[in-house]
Amino acid sequence: MSDDVKRTDVNDLGEFGLIDHLTKSIVLNNPSSKYGVGDDAAVIDNGDMLSLVSTDMLVEGIHFDLMYTPLKHLGYKAVVVNLSDIYAMNGIPKQITVSIAISNRFSVETMNELYEGVKLACKRYNVDLVGGDMTSSPKGLIISITAIGQGEKGRVVYRNTAKKGDLFCITGDLGAAYLGLQILERERQVYLSNPNIQPDLGKESYLIERILKPEARKDLIEVMRKADLIPTSMIDVSDGLASEIFHICTQSGVGAMIEESGVPIKQETEIQAIDFNMDPITCALSGGEDYELLFTVDPKDLDKVKYMPDIYIMGEVTEQAHGIKMHTKGGNIHDLKAQGWKHFGND
Amino acid sequence: MSDDVKRTDVNDLGEFGLIDHLTKSIVLNNPSSKYGVGDDAAVIDNGDMLSLVSTDMLVEGIHFDLMYTPLKHLGYKAVVVNLSDIYAMNGIPKQITVSIAISNRFSVETMNELYEGVKLACKRYNVDLVGGDMTSSPKGLIISITAIGQGEKGRVVYRNTAKKGDLFCITGDLGAAYLGLQILERERQVYLSNPNIQPDLGKESYLIERILKPEARKDLIEVMRKADLIPTSMIDVSDGLASEIFHICTQSGVGAMIEESGVPIKQETEIQAIDFNMDPITCALSGGEDYELLFTVDPKDLDKVKYMPDIYIMGEVTEQAHGIKMHTKGGNIHDLKAQGWKHFGND
Repeated sequence: MSDDVKRTDVNDLGEFGLIDHLTKSIVLNNPSSKYGVGDDAAVIDNGDMLSLVSTDMLVEGIHFDLMYTPLKHLGYKAVVVNLSDIYAMNGIPKQITVSIAISNRFSVETMNELYEGVKLACKRYNVDLVGGDMTSSPKGLIISITAIGQGEKGRVVYRNTAKKGDLFCITGDLGAAYLGLQILERERQVYLSNPNIQPDLGKESYLIERILKPEARKDLIEVMRKADLIPTSMIDVSDGLASEIFHICTQSGVGAMIEESGVPIKQETEIQAIDFNMDPITCALSGGEDYELLFTVDPKDLDKVKYMPDIYIMGEVTEQAHGIKMHTKGGNIHDLKAQGWKHFGND
Repeated sequence: MSDDVKRTDVNDLGEFGLIDHLTKSIVLNNPSSKYGVGDDAAVIDNGDMLSLVSTDMLVEGIHFDLMYTPLKHLGYKAVVVNLSDIYAMNGIPKQITVSIAISNRFSVETMNELYEGVKLACKRYNVDLVGGDMTSSPKGLIISITAIGQGEKGRVVYRNTAKKGDLFCITGDLGAAYLGLQILERERQVYLSNPNIQPDLGKESYLIERILKPEARKDLIEVMRKADLIPTSMIDVSDGLASEIFHICTQSGVGAMIEESGVPIKQETEIQAIDFNMDPITCALSGGEDYELLFTVDPKDLDKVKYMPDIYIMGEVTEQAHGIKMHTKGGNIHDLKAQGWKHFGND
């Protein structure tokens, strides 16, 4: 490797910085390449329809720990997180490809389990598994999934089209997946210190399900479609609500005023956060892996969105100069911080 | 992991067996899913056109050794092997997504090199990089690329449509990439035993280029298109010529009679094989990574194909009951063996 001259650590840029750095000079040459890097999915123009393409890689030891992740759940989740990206473009996922690298530590039976989860997600979301790759890995399990969806012309929703005066909306509830992960990590430590102690996870089952077996908000995309509501911008919440608000604001050239009281957090999540000495709103803003949809709507659509189930209005799109702010329950206004920072680890 | 009851080693099935096992029960439900697992690429019906989708994962320590693989070449090759799959369907690649997992052993500068290779391949093949993922890896470099291409209805070519009486054709030359790899492995051993010895690879540059920087046969797909020649079946040579002949024959329900004298092998390849005490025809049949196109044509198209540059007729499609045979230069007829076997390694 020829980095003798200068060596810049990948962590100086971080994941998003590195992607920007490597892809900023890219020019799209094919007329069918309608939108490239920078949104939940790429957009390809096929004449009548648009194809949406999204891809994610999950790596053992980084994205999941097989000590507490059943392989069926892992297969299910690996599919769902990709479908979530297609829904976040207001599209309908239709096909996936699944590429897997494994060492011989994995048996045919464990691969069956993983694929059971993949197939269950395909069935539930009406998506076809159409291809992939299967290869050897020197260490652990790596899953790379590409989802392909359909979008109608004029109905695909990007991140960079929020306008001043629009309303910020969020689906479902936030922070639960993050706390589910903290519970699993705690139980892992308990197990490592004494393998005879059996974990009791019954009362925390909602939080654990949110991290191990999330769902994509297909249901709400369908509700919006029936109501003929097209958001002005949309993104799914994978890295954390605050990070996604930043993506929409930065790419749209706007600011935000988010009401803390408008951020939906379930009671189970609040109780568990306090139990861990954490602030529930911090878990909701920075936790990530919620796979809810963050979107903006034109104020003229307020009546449509106001009575939709499981959708909450939590703020307003402001001018860029205003910054990205939160109005706290205590009545203060402060800058929102995006902490969706992921470290590249040691080899 | 719940493989307490029964544990079947993945190597009992092998790569292709495991894919078959995991995907055999899949039913395609979406009308747009025209063809799924089992060919070089999946086929998606978009109304006017067909989309072709192919995906490959390359893992450090399995598919490449960074000791002798410049990262720019690796980026280039990772793209080309995917484009080759789209050409093997008689399609035109248009977009790719690139997902990468790295540990912090890799610097921003080394990632620049990798992406230079990716971008060079995109430029040369007129393909747009439209998306991807960038994540952390606990060990080494993993690259997963998905290529998306366009196919015209009625002109997409599958593996399972060869007919008795068709002619087997092959592009370019075979075995060179495999011998290039053997040279690099030899130099690696020399280096490990004495790091002061500088490798002299000048006279073997063709063989080394074939393994480090292969090209996809875009040129010959264009030649065939101009001549209005549509093969009756086609596949690209990634795992080895014999293995690909088996894929076409098994999936088409036919047999083959291949002329040993018809298998194109360059003089450099022959000389190097003999130097390594290997049989050149074995290198050509089982070496792999040639990324040439193996295809069959209807005898009525013989005149079209006969004078095409760099395309060679090397046998005939026979009845399935006849088996898959080779007619040797010595005048014998024996069964062809497919040795495209890849082992899943230890964790």
